[in-house]
Amino acid sequence: MKKVGVAVLGLGVVGGGTCRILIDRKKQIAEEYGVDIDIAAVLDRIPERVTNLGLDLSILAKDIDEICDNPNVNIVVECMGGSEPARTFLIKALEAGKSIVTSNKEMFAKFWPDLEKAAAKTGAGLYYEATTGGGMPIIRTMTQAMQANGIQEIKAIINGTTNYILTRMTEEGADYQQVLKDAQALGYAEANPVADVEGYDSSYKLSILSSLAFNKRVPVDIIYREGITKITAEDIRIAKDMGFVIKLLAIAKQRGDKIEARVHPVFLPKSHPLANVNGSFNAVFVVGDAVGDIMLYGRGAGALPTGSAIVSDVVFCARQVEHARYPEMFNVMTQDQIVSDFESDYYLRLNARDVSGVIADIASVFKKYKVSISQMRQDESKEVIPVIFITHKTTEKAMKQAIEEIKSLPNVLSVENVIRVEK
Amino acid sequence: MKKVGVAVLGLGVVGGGTCRILIDRKKQIAEEYGVDIDIAAVLDRIPERVTNLGLDLSILAKDIDEICDNPNVNIVVECMGGSEPARTFLIKALEAGKSIVTSNKEMFAKFWPDLEKAAAKTGAGLYYEATTGGGMPIIRTMTQAMQANGIQEIKAIINGTTNYILTRMTEEGADYQQVLKDAQALGYAEANPVADVEGYDSSYKLSILSSLAFNKRVPVDIIYREGITKITAEDIRIAKDMGFVIKLLAIAKQRGDKIEARVHPVFLPKSHPLANVNGSFNAVFVVGDAVGDIMLYGRGAGALPTGSAIVSDVVFCARQVEHARYPEMFNVMTQDQIVSDFESDYYLRLNARDVSGVIADIASVFKKYKVSISQMRQDESKEVIPVIFITHKTTEKAMKQAIEEIKSLPNVLSVENVIRVEK
Repeated sequence: MKKVGVAVLGLGVVGGGTCRILIDRKKQIAEEYGVDIDIAAVLDRIPERVTNLGLDLSILAKDIDEICDNPNVNIVVECMGGSEPARTFLIKALEAGKSIVTSNKEMFAKFWPDLEKAAAKTGAGLYYEATTGGGMPIIRTMTQAMQANGIQEIKAIINGTTNYILTRMTEEGADYQQVLKDAQALGYAEANPVADVEGYDSSYKLSILSSLAFNKRVPVDIIYREGITKITAEDIRIAKDMGFVIKLLAIAKQRGDKIEARVHPVFLPKSHPLANVNGSFNAVFVVGDAVGDIMLYGRGAGALPTGSAIVSDVVFCARQVEHARYPEMFNVMTQDQIVSDFESDYYLRLNARDVSGVIADIASVFKKYKVSISQMRQDESKEVIPVIFITHKTTEKAMKQAIEEIKSLPNVLSVENVIRVEK
Repeated sequence: MKKVGVAVLGLGVVGGGTCRILIDRKKQIAEEYGVDIDIAAVLDRIPERVTNLGLDLSILAKDIDEICDNPNVNIVVECMGGSEPARTFLIKALEAGKSIVTSNKEMFAKFWPDLEKAAAKTGAGLYYEATTGGGMPIIRTMTQAMQANGIQEIKAIINGTTNYILTRMTEEGADYQQVLKDAQALGYAEANPVADVEGYDSSYKLSILSSLAFNKRVPVDIIYREGITKITAEDIRIAKDMGFVIKLLAIAKQRGDKIEARVHPVFLPKSHPLANVNGSFNAVFVVGDAVGDIMLYGRGAGALPTGSAIVSDVVFCARQVEHARYPEMFNVMTQDQIVSDFESDYYLRLNARDVSGVIADIASVFKKYKVSISQMRQDESKEVIPVIFITHKTTEKAMKQAIEEIKSLPNVLSVENVIRVEK
């Protein structure tokens, strides 16, 4: 039987879960897949983490060089997180001829070409199922199950923290700050939640998915990004009343020879398959030109789901005789290949004075910018009235110009929120 | 670049769709996957089908032997349907060293071991993504993305025809016969709908999925099977009222050292991810012990979705240096390894005379068989009253005995329907 040695860098939640699975399922994997996988080395600053897993301290390496020099290590699994030293360690491993498996989306999204280059030198393999969507096999699906398809569209809920917060806001009618605090206490959100709530995490993952979809690297910094911090209980309530839910979506679309790539909150009709993806679950909806609509749904994070994706990559990698190369990742999409002035329907909530003519004034601004209105709502008469518009499809530019002008109308007090509508 | 020759057996809907994709995406597949795929031969009784695809008549083979002898054919794609001659043709191809790709679930579910045996002789590959779930990559997910998992449970909507019928019955409040007729007129159901509506098609697919899940062949004939023909508009209406939808599910569960494998209609809570899978869409919900819940959703049939799965297999197969073997399929699960007296909650609808004591009589029968009641409903008083029970978890045996005895109660006129409840 083929013997395979694995080194695990970082024994935190995900690294620990990966070791757990490799130990517990060693026999079954050998029987079912014909590869006998051993943990040949680990790297971590805390020796107790090694012994707590029931592993022998003798496999704790002093540094990455020791692992690169170890002839028993075939595959290096990286679960350290952060750009450095993860990137440097993995490049060393690849240059030493070790295949790598990583769950580190930030590092991978930023330095994919560097890793491809190092891998190409030695013929080593590069596996990253665990970077995106936890245990949900979206990378395997896009690379090994949609070869017959041109990808037309991706819509994804790929951040569990924000989906958990939005779900609780929807269920409880609670405000963002209140739910965030609770999510932090429960461990669903980090003490510093910026990477999640401002959409950075989703944009790393969208960079990876859209690069695979369009066969050209879509760097993180050309992805439009907007987080969930401005979503209020009021917007959630109105969405619900009108048959929508609010979700943070990562969206990529082919548009002629350009693409769209954006992360932002959306109004999504309740009947959309993604609308029922709740709590910390993730889901990716993909449209292929042959297969039509497909969707994957699963746990986007956690020791065992993410460990499951890593071990799947380890087994897949161990059975490959020759590893697939992605030279197209050296080919980078630039800002001018992104549709900057994309089209969407919009939800607009504003406060106005209850005087006659204010709606007519707003409507004439919309008319000027050719923004057509699909629905309008006006709450009961008080001195200040909330007014809600949902527009038909229009461009970002037209909408921004219209909003600037609406803000300056004498009887409009404030524009409270603008959220795109996705169908 | 690696050159690969494909022979397509059967140029009907699926075979035609496959050729269409192979022709249209030849260049992109070569660029992205490094394999140059040609249609080297076809087999069909209707020469027009060849020319209609823009293919040259010179590649139309006179019989399977000519294809087996053709050194330019590396992979044989079978889209003929039916057990024979498909099985014989594929065994011949495997013995001639050609890898095979098939969409034929009935043949594959029945003769998988024969095909494995023939493939093992020559080292040829066996690919069958298109047998189950159309374009949804459930086979690839189970074999290439869940290696770290013991599979605990599968729940699947894997027959588009029955899901279409049940969806329309739910949306329109219409009766089974009426929707079936309409579905036949629209091409969503066959003139002879037995294979779909009686659950045979779902049981073929469940045989394939559960064999992969439990690493042991689960033959079709030990799968419990019940179709949708007895579901009435009345049951659908009651389900809706009580927060359920009725779906035809294919279910497989690990139960200690035994398994459950069954196809039947169920009451499913509206909040279950499968409850929102409507129309002709398919979805498979899988629980792995590491990954937790995952779900795949997509089009279960059609020329291009199924063609997408076939072409994915062709590309996957073409890039393999060594093909995976599944010798565990020679190991067959027997009737005694199936939990025959499985447990479930039950929905029971009966008609009774509106006389005092009838409910007490029924309740005492339930008590005798230790069936505990979760909900009871009784419609407004007429001479004949419909009574609905939903039970807590109980065994099939206890439920059957209770029903037999309830039928014989003097004031019970008829037991109208019994449907299992799945959560």
